[in-house]
Amino acid sequence: MLVTCVAYQNGRKLAEIPVADISEYLQRSGCFVWVAMFEPSPDELDQMAAEFGLHELAVEDARKGHQRPKIEEYGDSLFAVLHPAEMVKSTGGADELRIGEVAVFVGPNYVLTVRQRTQMGFSAVRARTEREPDLLKHGSGFVFYALIDNVVDRYFPVLDELETRLEAAEEQMFSSGSSRSRIEDLYELKRMLMSLKHVVSPLMEAVGKLYGGRVPQLCQGTQDYFRDVYDHLARINGTIESIREMLTTAIQVNLALIGISDSEVTKRLAAWGALITIPTLIAGIYGMNFKNMPELEWQHGYPLALGIMFVIDLLLFWRFRRARWI
Amino acid sequence: MLVTCVAYQNGRKLAEIPVADISEYLQRSGCFVWVAMFEPSPDELDQMAAEFGLHELAVEDARKGHQRPKIEEYGDSLFAVLHPAEMVKSTGGADELRIGEVAVFVGPNYVLTVRQRTQMGFSAVRARTEREPDLLKHGSGFVFYALIDNVVDRYFPVLDELETRLEAAEEQMFSSGSSRSRIEDLYELKRMLMSLKHVVSPLMEAVGKLYGGRVPQLCQGTQDYFRDVYDHLARINGTIESIREMLTTAIQVNLALIGISDSEVTKRLAAWGALITIPTLIAGIYGMNFKNMPELEWQHGYPLALGIMFVIDLLLFWRFRRARWI
Amino acid sequence: MLVTCVAYQNGRKLAEIPVADISEYLQRSGCFVWVAMFEPSPDELDQMAAEFGLHELAVEDARKGHQRPKIEEYGDSLFAVLHPAEMVKSTGGADELRIGEVAVFVGPNYVLTVRQRTQMGFSAVRARTEREPDLLKHGSGFVFYALIDNVVDRYFPVLDELETRLEAAEEQMFSSGSSRSRIEDLYELKRMLMSLKHVVSPLMEAVGKLYGGRVPQLCQGTQDYFRDVYDHLARINGTIESIREMLTTAIQVNLALIGISDSEVTKRLAAWGALITIPTLIAGIYGMNFKNMPELEWQHGYPLALGIMFVIDLLLFWRFRRARWI
Amino acid sequence: MLVTCVAYQNGRKLAEIPVADISEYLQRSGCFVWVAMFEPSPDELDQMAAEFGLHELAVEDARKGHQRPKIEEYGDSLFAVLHPAEMVKSTGGADELRIGEVAVFVGPNYVLTVRQRTQMGFSAVRARTEREPDLLKHGSGFVFYALIDNVVDRYFPVLDELETRLEAAEEQMFSSGSSRSRIEDLYELKRMLMSLKHVVSPLMEAVGKLYGGRVPQLCQGTQDYFRDVYDHLARINGTIESIREMLTTAIQVNLALIGISDSEVTKRLAAWGALITIPTLIAGIYGMNFKNMPELEWQHGYPLALGIMFVIDLLLFWRFRRARWI
Amino acid sequence: MLVTCVAYQNGRKLAEIPVADISEYLQRSGCFVWVAMFEPSPDELDQMAAEFGLHELAVEDARKGHQRPKIEEYGDSLFAVLHPAEMVKSTGGADELRIGEVAVFVGPNYVLTVRQRTQMGFSAVRARTEREPDLLKHGSGFVFYALIDNVVDRYFPVLDELETRLEAAEEQMFSSGSSRSRIEDLYELKRMLMSLKHVVSPLMEAVGKLYGGRVPQLCQGTQDYFRDVYDHLARINGTIESIREMLTTAIQVNLALIGISDSEVTKRLAAWGALITIPTLIAGIYGMNFKNMPELEWQHGYPLALGIMFVIDLLLFWRFRRARWI
Repeated sequence: MLVTCVAYQNGRKLAEIPVADISEYLQRSGCFVWVAMFEPSPDELDQMAAEFGLHELAVEDARKGHQRPKIEEYGDSLFAVLHPAEMVKSTGGADELRIGEVAVFVGPNYVLTVRQRTQMGFSAVRARTEREPDLLKHGSGFVFYALIDNVVDRYFPVLDELETRLEAAEEQMFSSGSSRSRIEDLYELKRMLMSLKHVVSPLMEAVGKLYGGRVPQLCQGTQDYFRDVYDHLARINGTIESIREMLTTAIQVNLALIGISDSEVTKRLAAWGALITIPTLIAGIYGMNFKNMPELEWQHGYPLALGIMFVIDLLLFWRFRRARWI
Repeated sequence: MLVTCVAYQNGRKLAEIPVADISEYLQRSGCFVWVAMFEPSPDELDQMAAEFGLHELAVEDARKGHQRPKIEEYGDSLFAVLHPAEMVKSTGGADELRIGEVAVFVGPNYVLTVRQRTQMGFSAVRARTEREPDLLKHGSGFVFYALIDNVVDRYFPVLDELETRLEAAEEQMFSSGSSRSRIEDLYELKRMLMSLKHVVSPLMEAVGKLYGGRVPQLCQGTQDYFRDVYDHLARINGTIESIREMLTTAIQVNLALIGISDSEVTKRLAAWGALITIPTLIAGIYGMNFKNMPELEWQHGYPLALGIMFVIDLLLFWRFRRARWI
Repeated sequence: MLVTCVAYQNGRKLAEIPVADISEYLQRSGCFVWVAMFEPSPDELDQMAAEFGLHELAVEDARKGHQRPKIEEYGDSLFAVLHPAEMVKSTGGADELRIGEVAVFVGPNYVLTVRQRTQMGFSAVRARTEREPDLLKHGSGFVFYALIDNVVDRYFPVLDELETRLEAAEEQMFSSGSSRSRIEDLYELKRMLMSLKHVVSPLMEAVGKLYGGRVPQLCQGTQDYFRDVYDHLARINGTIESIREMLTTAIQVNLALIGISDSEVTKRLAAWGALITIPTLIAGIYGMNFKNMPELEWQHGYPLALGIMFVIDLLLFWRFRRARWI
Repeated sequence: MLVTCVAYQNGRKLAEIPVADISEYLQRSGCFVWVAMFEPSPDELDQMAAEFGLHELAVEDARKGHQRPKIEEYGDSLFAVLHPAEMVKSTGGADELRIGEVAVFVGPNYVLTVRQRTQMGFSAVRARTEREPDLLKHGSGFVFYALIDNVVDRYFPVLDELETRLEAAEEQMFSSGSSRSRIEDLYELKRMLMSLKHVVSPLMEAVGKLYGGRVPQLCQGTQDYFRDVYDHLARINGTIESIREMLTTAIQVNLALIGISDSEVTKRLAAWGALITIPTLIAGIYGMNFKNMPELEWQHGYPLALGIMFVIDLLLFWRFRRARWI
Repeated sequence: MLVTCVAYQNGRKLAEIPVADISEYLQRSGCFVWVAMFEPSPDELDQMAAEFGLHELAVEDARKGHQRPKIEEYGDSLFAVLHPAEMVKSTGGADELRIGEVAVFVGPNYVLTVRQRTQMGFSAVRARTEREPDLLKHGSGFVFYALIDNVVDRYFPVLDELETRLEAAEEQMFSSGSSRSRIEDLYELKRMLMSLKHVVSPLMEAVGKLYGGRVPQLCQGTQDYFRDVYDHLARINGTIESIREMLTTAIQVNLALIGISDSEVTKRLAAWGALITIPTLIAGIYGMNFKNMPELEWQHGYPLALGIMFVIDLLLFWRFRRARWI
């Protein structure tokens, strides 16, 4: 589905143009065309491929999807795969990490974005770039930067959410005993974190090649901007690593605390058990049927026996409490 | 066993030719020969080695098998070892990861594949390349790409299968208690994953040398294609790493949950035990044979005793339930 | 908020100057201006950006904060983000690791520091540099070194504090049994360590680019100094890694010791239980109501039974003690 | 102890020569001398050092032994330390990994091997090289290759043995319960694996420098061969890593299964205990001595009581069995 | 404190000279001065700094100490920090790893060592170098090598000690049950190992830059020697890694074995408990006071009851033993 198709000249928006006119605008000097598509049909994509002269392999990747984040050079144009991420409420009410996919074709005078499996559009990017005609003059390279920057900026709230959840789990872990459902939360958290990492590190690696050293022609005027994006990605990546390490420890601690919690209860019950078995033994002794058991004849034998039971238990209780067994 | 032996010219199939004619076709310009063998006898292999002038060490590797995935240059020709992987039903009904081995000799005007321990042939590759004469004009380098691409594409369903199994195990892990057989499944899963990794990472490393920087002569027109294959391998590798990490955690969690599950039962039984030992103590007390035990003479002594037992247990039960010990 | 704004010439302080005069002093040869700000308003920052001609992206980073430690070149000037760290008493009385943020803009003839979320100022740096006019002659590059050196030096007491805490935890771990609160301490320690690492390693990486190989113009006279700082960072980083590894082991050992401690108590209680159940059985036997039980008629049956109970327990106790079950 | 001392010319064996004649043969063109020693005395080694002009440091290393695997250049000659490994039956009957040490001095026209602590000689290498005079013409470089290849080839059966043992342990682990002695086996397996790794990875690193890029003069005609050896080492190394990872998991799973196994028995005994304590309570109740207990007077009170005990236990047993506690 | 101050010429010792004459000897050609100090006062150090023209930062590092191992170039001189290590008996009788610090200043015609916190002097180095005037002719570079070599050689006995202790712990682990104190030993062992690693790996990295590629002027004649030292460090480092990995496993196994050991005792006690509770139940049944209990009237009821108890226990014992629960 075609979303928009706009021509720009010298940093200013010219007009929304019909697809058929694209090739005409591409020939004007200082002019570039920016097309946005959402889950296009194979035909729509083929039309664009013909219009812009896209490389067969890149088109194939955009069509099939499920690529890893990457930025590839095909001659003087670039093909990038980005993965926007967002937390969405699933039908069950739980938060879910949803990861979309955007294929971006960038040439000297065009930008084509093909969005898949995500509701997050790039209207904000369009607005931002149109607000800064000075920068937009850099042409498609700057738009490319703005797109990546937008995708990367959206990782931050996701990361914050994961961090918050970890902190919540940590707090509960030590305060309110350890319940088994928390393990499931932590495990789920780890899975989301791994998904995010899977998306962030290859992109970081790819963006790292867009500044310093040999740089694709398209990005040469905007190297500082790509370095800035790289930096954000490096920060996200570092935070992911930290969370991952704390998460591993948290799962380990949590599992151990549950086990400890159960075995502590068993220990306490065993201690209380001891307090009961001793009087039971004494009662058993005075329940024996020997003919000749003088105590049984005593006037105060019974209360004495009860007293002994009580005193022994009191002593034991005191010792157990002191040893923190109860 | 010789499977097929076909000559191509300018991207078009000429004919199936007898082995003896190979050297004749090799001398025609723009012509190349593609031979496929399946578990050849040493003699058949020696014949080919003579026909194509293969390097002794490469032939030795193809004969002995059990090589790691690699791509080696011998002068202007290449020798590659690929490992196709597939999930097959074992006789016991369980899925098994079967890993075959294919040695590929590629020269400027020939391709020779030697397949071992795998039923997966390359007829699909042959069909694909013959459908695209424009690409086939690139000659043996393109066929080489198509072969690797085919092997790599077959890793995806294997990986999906492993991912699906992990997800199934994760779901059961938290829903239906933890049984010991699941540990065995996860362990088996890990073993298969390690086998796949063992096959994927060296190949990724090797393919990474076929684009960018200095590239073997044969692959120079098809660098973009090899980069595409590399990309797929990188994605597979990344996914393997993710699965591996989640698997490690899953095994750890699963083991802990089994232990916890058992110790929780022990705890609950200990709690129920306490509910029984206290009335037993009371019964023991009133089973003592002291002469002077006034309660025994009471009219309602017996139901009173029973009542006390009941009330104490009720209180205990209520406390235990509140503390989630029962 | 502007803290100070001072002009220097040939390594000597000229005067505190008003912001408006900055551009005038910048034009004098051999003169440089050093401005310190604390949580400036956007307007103050914009004014400085205009005064010194700072790059838009760097200013944006300084304004938004929450950057990772980095040192970036913009033309012939540098932009750095540093994170001073200190241990502070939180309101709850516990020590807390507080990490601030300082953005540093360095040009050939100016230094601008923008401090955020930290009370730690740089008056000590100013004093030190003014005491060494010979070095201050190197200009803004030397001031830049002094700032980084100051931040890095402040990591040492933090690290010492973490090391001391780990040692205290280790000592308690083996001496006084294992309490659950210690796990929490160790976990907290790990979190602080990870925060510190998050701040140290990117800075180390960045400083490593300021000596040897291609070096920014500004730092060329002071390479040996930056190598010295790098060295301190490498030492801190190495120590962090050591602490981290020991911490992981300590948490693991601690968790296991708690579990072991509980199960040992259970074991001991079970052993004591055995000492009670056997006399209970004997008492039960002599409490049976069979008509024909000769022992019951014996003159010394009762003391004999008690004696048997006692002897059996003595033997058991002796065996259990020998096996270290009690 | 001198083992053999042979002179070769143009790929053919000339004769076994006395040590005193070595220097004479070294001067003939196209001629090289191959000397094998086994645990030589310091004097013998010094004599060889003088004869061949060996570097002091290399001789020192050969004399002291306990070097790590390495290949070092001294001018136009090479000094290598190899570690042959084999599984031997120890006196106790258990298999043991024995690792020997061979120092190899290679010059343009000589090869000197100094074998320590290993019965594995190189007669097979000598036979192989003499069978291939065409290759032996390459001179000492080819002999050097043949020696390394021989040592590396002997790692494969060791590795197979370790793999077989791991598989055996894995099978038992899930089939026949977990015994403590298996942990010891796995631990021993890990120790042997680490020893092998200790020997394989430095050698791989060293051999990797003998092909591609700058290569010592001696190895220039035989680069393909060294690449082949490198490849074998890489495969061994990859397999070691796989085994190591599976071993870590296997130890972890095994330890957990033992713990689980014990706590499961405890759980089952606790469940059976519950089946006994309830009838005991009932018996206790009817053993009380209250005057007024109507049931005691009933004609069928006794069988009724027994029946109740039986029915309660039956119900409990059924519930426990359903919950898989028994 | 000055230890010695000696002048050498052409590889021969000239004389012990007073500090004041140093500058005079420095000017003689082919002459170099070797000064050794032990925990010098700031004044002494300043005097030397002036005498030899040492760099301010290097002197500062030597004064403050607590540097990481490193080798730094200052112009044509080198500054190195080495950490000798030794096992010493602590006052408590336990072995302790003590790590000293030696700062070494090396110039074309001088060597200055500043020893801190260690009793290990370098008289052996002095003796060795004086015994080899041919090598000593290489001047200060060779002395520098000899110093490093000496420090590195002293790591071997420390490493052996750690290895021996690990082996002792491993042996006990499987033979004589697992005591908690062994965990403490292993933990202590790990701490010492980490300390050693902290000292070895940076030194290895630093020494690696003294041979091959660009090398400081001072070390150019002695590259082979530095490669030899590097090799020893690489071996030490590899062994440390092996010990570390085995140690991690040993701690894990040990902790698990303790837990298992306790829970096994609990299991056995529970099994024995079952053997007691069943006869107790039977005794309880025949202790009931029902009027109509025919067995009670039987002539042989009592021995029969005892017999039943005995037979049931015998059967249970046999089953438990077979299941290895007892």
